[in-house]
Amino acid sequence: MDEYRLHQQIKFILEIDKLKQVLRQTYVLQERRRENSAEHSWQLALMATLLAEYCTAPVDVLHVIRMVLVHDIVEIDAGDTYCYGDQSGKSDREEAAAQRLFGLLPHDQAEEMAALWREFEARETMEARYAAALDRLMPMLLNYHTEGQSWREHGVSKDQVIARNQHIAEAAPELWTFARNMIEDAVRRGYLLP
Amino acid sequence: MDEYRLHQQIKFILEIDKLKQVLRQTYVLQERRRENSAEHSWQLALMATLLAEYCTAPVDVLHVIRMVLVHDIVEIDAGDTYCYGDQSGKSDREEAAAQRLFGLLPHDQAEEMAALWREFEARETMEARYAAALDRLMPMLLNYHTEGQSWREHGVSKDQVIARNQHIAEAAPELWTFARNMIEDAVRRGYLLP
Repeated sequence: MDEYRLHQQIKFILEIDKLKQVLRQTYVLQERRRENSAEHSWQLALMATLLAEYCTAPVDVLHVIRMVLVHDIVEIDAGDTYCYGDQSGKSDREEAAAQRLFGLLPHDQAEEMAALWREFEARETMEARYAAALDRLMPMLLNYHTEGQSWREHGVSKDQVIARNQHIAEAAPELWTFARNMIEDAVRRGYLLP
Repeated sequence: MDEYRLHQQIKFILEIDKLKQVLRQTYVLQERRRENSAEHSWQLALMATLLAEYCTAPVDVLHVIRMVLVHDIVEIDAGDTYCYGDQSGKSDREEAAAQRLFGLLPHDQAEEMAALWREFEARETMEARYAAALDRLMPMLLNYHTEGQSWREHGVSKDQVIARNQHIAEAAPELWTFARNMIEDAVRRGYLLP
């Protein structure tokens, strides 16, 4: 056994424990505390296995799952950038974070994890589009089912939510139809500004 | 689109949000708050992709990941049963939980999720053994790196930890060697009773 290799892998696994303390703007349904990025990633991964049938083309589900498991790790160093807030400096911060964090791993696995993250960010492959669609749909679901708590706190409008999330339709038009209905209902209920 | 099918899938995805509030006995590394089963499942899934090379036989990593994503969902109804505590009634509680929770899904997916959970519990396939090994190794890592916080709170001894975790060797002997060294060191440091 290559002991140094295992040492690097364990070091990475311990380091990413910090994702459990990166807080997002969404709230979990019952406790109404802010969600952390680790539990969010778990829910997306499970969702990926359940909703793949809505993709416009077949997807490699393992690849999607691996992307969503990895997609937020850079937030350990770069923080969670609120999607309806200022995005400046985000990509530089995240690139540096990817270098440091994935760089803890043995070279082959570091490359693999960084490639998954870059693929997710680029949103060019079908798998990345589907992963991004889930990453958009899930917070909408949580926002809607917490009476728009996070939307209301930030004064978010229907147009902002549509602009931000409409690319769900690229991967899974039926999921976007579902989301559009939810958005209309959120406006009616006063969760979102018209 | 079968709207009722999507409705069932979304209902399940919202219901499992409750796993974010099921607390385990382990502590997360930095905040030293108790870990929840959703973030635990995320960490195992990522670990599954990184440590598969230590398995004694090739494993289907997607299958392992899907098992670990699902393995704790029954705790939403059945609660987390502490591994060094009373196990009575656990399997009945978990069986009823599986029926209710997976039963929220469309029939085909309910069967699939329940089968993954049962396979994990039975620990007969190579994939289930590897998943179980990760499920044992991760809490040991967190306990060791929190100065044995949870072990000390419950007065856990070295023999108990060995008896509970030695089946790691069935799937990945090198990971068990690593764990054995950590256990010995934990005794030396007073994290575990000798």
